[in-house]
Amino acid sequence: MNLLVTPIALGVAVTADGDLAALLLGAMDELGETVSDGDVIVVTSKVVAKAEGRVVAFDGTEDAKLALIESESRRILRRRGTLRITETRHGFINANAGVDLSNTDPGTAVLLPLDPDRSARRLRAALHRRRGVDVGVVITDTFGRAWRHGVTDVAIGVAGLRAVLDLRGTLDATGRTLEATEVAIADEIAGAANLVLGKAAGTPFARLRGLDPTYFGNGSVARDIVRPVNGDLFR
Amino acid sequence: MNLLVTPIALGVAVTADGDLAALLLGAMDELGETVSDGDVIVVTSKVVAKAEGRVVAFDGTEDAKLALIESESRRILRRRGTLRITETRHGFINANAGVDLSNTDPGTAVLLPLDPDRSARRLRAALHRRRGVDVGVVITDTFGRAWRHGVTDVAIGVAGLRAVLDLRGTLDATGRTLEATEVAIADEIAGAANLVLGKAAGTPFARLRGLDPTYFGNGSVARDIVRPVNGDLFR
Repeated sequence: MNLLVTPIALGVAVTADGDLAALLLGAMDELGETVSDGDVIVVTSKVVAKAEGRVVAFDGTEDAKLALIESESRRILRRRGTLRITETRHGFINANAGVDLSNTDPGTAVLLPLDPDRSARRLRAALHRRRGVDVGVVITDTFGRAWRHGVTDVAIGVAGLRAVLDLRGTLDATGRTLEATEVAIADEIAGAANLVLGKAAGTPFARLRGLDPTYFGNGSVARDIVRPVNGDLFR
Repeated sequence: MNLLVTPIALGVAVTADGDLAALLLGAMDELGETVSDGDVIVVTSKVVAKAEGRVVAFDGTEDAKLALIESESRRILRRRGTLRITETRHGFINANAGVDLSNTDPGTAVLLPLDPDRSARRLRAALHRRRGVDVGVVITDTFGRAWRHGVTDVAIGVAGLRAVLDLRGTLDATGRTLEATEVAIADEIAGAANLVLGKAAGTPFARLRGLDPTYFGNGSVARDIVRPVNGDLFR
């Protein structure tokens, strides 16, 4: 089946206590787009964080930036100049603990949502309440990677969707068991959405339509993707 | 603009000296699909490797597997049981040097293409020759990641497409310079394609239609994504 990835631009700014479901549905209505069972809604962490009031004062100094990063981190893995590779309180390994200084209101910084899986579940429930639809939700942020240049968007929270598709035990076309087949579909969905979002364009939502029905289920980024420390060869 | 991701199933097996462009176009014709300027064709490394004769005898023993992995590696970063985290001759950091034992003919293993950027350029040129179209090509393989559970498909070769989109210097919506904005679009494209491919289904190709025109250009995974050792905080 074809997969269709559609950007949903937002005409208004998101403020604290903003109702993301209402904003998304309003934007969709204006664009003549719909939401249906089996769609996946992708939303960037920044608008989720803004709606949840995860915005703090920031005076623009390096000292203030480093203090913010440390307060959001459980551990600093590497330092280079003012770059920190951090382990956040969620267990994510990322740059500068996800503290976001771009596309923020003057004098402010935006932090990551406290519990992005919960944020995803809330948006999913609100969409069900308002339109009766059963959709997956993915909350994304932009992460660097070890060993590969360039950032990609990954999932930091999911709801109604598997984070990892477990194909272990599945036979390949020749009848042998597949290897290395726990696929992080939530991260692939996040990257697919980012291809249509554009960094500066005020487009925090995307809708994916046409994903395989087996992708849906009770996933969690915290449980299924964040590696336990003792399973990690690089920590 | 909407992005459309379409799987292209292949009804026949790929053999050494197989003509990938002919196989792809034949499959598209049968499916009633077309290829146009501005499309991106994604193809898995396995069929590229098979067509290039990168298939070796493999007796199924652990010793033979480890010998293959070592011969394909420049360096071993980590060992756990029979898992090796390797740096391949290309500079990729992956599991078991990309030596592929699933979906292979009995008694054989499939290695990575020798120069996947070149393989992508060849397929792009062949499609231009046969249909006069100007497309991007991405060759993908499945890699694990540090710190995140689950594998994703990433780009190991590109042609006619930027591997990394450089947005540094671009102003955000508030007029400040964007940070962390070299986006590895080739990897996001690889992941998007994998969402429609399915591991065991004999679908090695996908077509992406609707990508932003600024994504096209003279990219290279080897040059643009493989991190130089001295730029890498985790090697």
